Amino acid sequence: MALSNSLKCYGIKRGKTGVGIAVIEGRIFATYTQNRIKAAPILFNLKNLGKRVRGIIVNSGNANAFTGEEGIRKARKMAEFLSERIGCSVNEIAIASTGIIGRQLELDEIEEIGREVYANLGSDAESIEAFARAIMTTDRFPKVTKRVFGDVEMVGIAKGAGMISPNMATMLAFIFTNARVEKMDAIFKRAVNHSFNKLVVDGDTSTNDTVFLVTTEETETDGKKFEDELTSLMLELAEMIARDGEGATKVFRVFVSGAKSDRDAELVAKAVVRSNLVKTAIFGKDPNFGRIVCAVGYSGADVDEKMSLKIKSRRGEAVLAERGCVFEKNIEIGREIMEDDTVEIHIELHRGSGKAYAIGCDLTHDYVELNSKYTT
Amino acid sequence: MALSNSLKCYGIKRGKTGVGIAVIEGRIFATYTQNRIKAAPILFNLKNLGKRVRGIIVNSGNANAFTGEEGIRKARKMAEFLSERIGCSVNEIAIASTGIIGRQLELDEIEEIGREVYANLGSDAESIEAFARAIMTTDRFPKVTKRVFGDVEMVGIAKGAGMISPNMATMLAFIFTNARVEKMDAIFKRAVNHSFNKLVVDGDTSTNDTVFLVTTEETETDGKKFEDELTSLMLELAEMIARDGEGATKVFRVFVSGAKSDRDAELVAKAVVRSNLVKTAIFGKDPNFGRIVCAVGYSGADVDEKMSLKIKSRRGEAVLAERGCVFEKNIEIGREIMEDDTVEIHIELHRGSGKAYAIGCDLTHDYVELNSKYTT
Repeated sequence: MALSNSLKCYGIKRGKTGVGIAVIEGRIFATYTQNRIKAAPILFNLKNLGKRVRGIIVNSGNANAFTGEEGIRKARKMAEFLSERIGCSVNEIAIASTGIIGRQLELDEIEEIGREVYANLGSDAESIEAFARAIMTTDRFPKVTKRVFGDVEMVGIAKGAGMISPNMATMLAFIFTNARVEKMDAIFKRAVNHSFNKLVVDGDTSTNDTVFLVTTEETETDGKKFEDELTSLMLELAEMIARDGEGATKVFRVFVSGAKSDRDAELVAKAVVRSNLVKTAIFGKDPNFGRIVCAVGYSGADVDEKMSLKIKSRRGEAVLAERGCVFEKNIEIGREIMEDDTVEIHIELHRGSGKAYAIGCDLTHDYVELNSKYTT
Repeated sequence: MALSNSLKCYGIKRGKTGVGIAVIEGRIFATYTQNRIKAAPILFNLKNLGKRVRGIIVNSGNANAFTGEEGIRKARKMAEFLSERIGCSVNEIAIASTGIIGRQLELDEIEEIGREVYANLGSDAESIEAFARAIMTTDRFPKVTKRVFGDVEMVGIAKGAGMISPNMATMLAFIFTNARVEKMDAIFKRAVNHSFNKLVVDGDTSTNDTVFLVTTEETETDGKKFEDELTSLMLELAEMIARDGEGATKVFRVFVSGAKSDRDAELVAKAVVRSNLVKTAIFGKDPNFGRIVCAVGYSGADVDEKMSLKIKSRRGEAVLAERGCVFEKNIEIGREIMEDDTVEIHIELHRGSGKAYAIGCDLTHDYVELNSKYTT
């Protein structure tokens, strides 16, 4: 059966407060922030949410984090609001919140908007986009994408701009599908690891990160194919989040090869992608290999000077260094390449066969502006 | 004998290139960057420098890092330049460089300026300040301080604005003293650890960080007293560096107590001090406890929500949270407190007796401006 027959969504944002609701019956897979301070909605899900779900309710504007017992009580109320309407157990409702930390939820406002959202649930693209818009905070655009192969459909929705860091971040993502595959749990975990967990916007890991995948399991399909499509969809959402990183003007990808191990490669990729000096250089369209080398050096990986560095974009590529020798004449070419809005940094360490990649965005005036003004 | 009789300094900065020379005979103690990619001057010192020194030569404008065999050869030439003039072994010369990574040194220019510097060496305060000015890169002011107790004198000089991070950073510091104490090596290491290693400007650990301490050992003194004074002098230099962090308008100190261990406390202090979201909030004078809580949570330390948070400055103090309860009414008072140019964040975790502190600076428009323009 088509996913559109099973999935109903809507959302409304009013001032700073938004509510998104999705009604769908299926198995749910979830992964949450690794921050030790977890927001109340995550604590609620961890304690209550079963393997099957009937609906999801999300609010934006308030993270319901660092809110103590009252926060937990209000998270449950949010779930009850939806379970009463659907007529299901509160254990079949998944919830998420995003916004300011340390403020109690205004439940009345959320319920008032929620009633209107529930009355307007729909299955068309506009309804899905309304959901995506309602959960935005500092996002500049809604993030929705989909995949269709055979009878399998997959819809992905995400939000997240700041606080994006390795291993989940204030990022919420919702994937809905009708696929039935074996070992979905493992597929889901691997896909998250190869997409959202490669993303670093500012290195701050939020209290609220959540990825949900809900499947109606109506359409049997091949696990391998499904995993490829799911990873590709999540990667697309991750890059949308990077592109919308607070104040970002460019996305950049860091590819590391030739490390002693995959773990070492990952240390290098993450160090480069989170370096403020690399990020400002990307903003300044400056092929500043010195800062890249520096980040490689302090990454914690076993590296030496004899690395090769290359930058690439749709405008071409430039080798900046080959086994430790700098190609000064290519720096000007590098500047031209960095005019593109998506830049790749390739680092070959010549130490082994370890590989990794990471996705980030530049650090700009607007990041500072947004985050020095976005207030408590 | 007074230190001024033993120490001769001078420095000249011409355009982007600066040379500073210090001539002093004594024992030398050194500590270098933990970056795996070490600059040529550090590699030279590690290989050649003995326990005693006759002179130090430093250039600014070029880090002589990621410069291969030629870089090492040129580092040695720099040392030879000074050893020939003093008439000593090249193994009695310590060298340091700071500036752009990945460019070969212009030795002719350094030697030309160096000859003029050597001809003007002096022992007065102006000569010391000339040395401090010559080694500046993006620094906005020279960093010199001293301590005198009894017959013991201590002069400290530092540079460093960007790339300042845990465990050394593009920071050069030179301490000259006439003190003789037992176990100077251990005292030196502890003092560095309690001062420079608490400093995080942008989390990027440079390839060039160096701290030298040279002592003529002419004046015997008490080790404990000396260590206190040395630590205080280094802490003062560290705070000068933070205050001059690229684009910084404020210094902030993070004090963590009640952690399960000192190690946990340090993880928390470092996570808070390097969080871009906390740093922009400090810039925006925003007592954004949510971002602090978030950083505490992802620090890797064993923590929970029941923490207490307080901010302090010369303008007063405000408790923002007590054992997990937020004091919303104090947020406005917090804003007023954060008007000061030095702000303290106190975090009590109520989990044990572990303590730590860290020093940082805010993240501002000028940081982005400087670092997107400072070019390869």
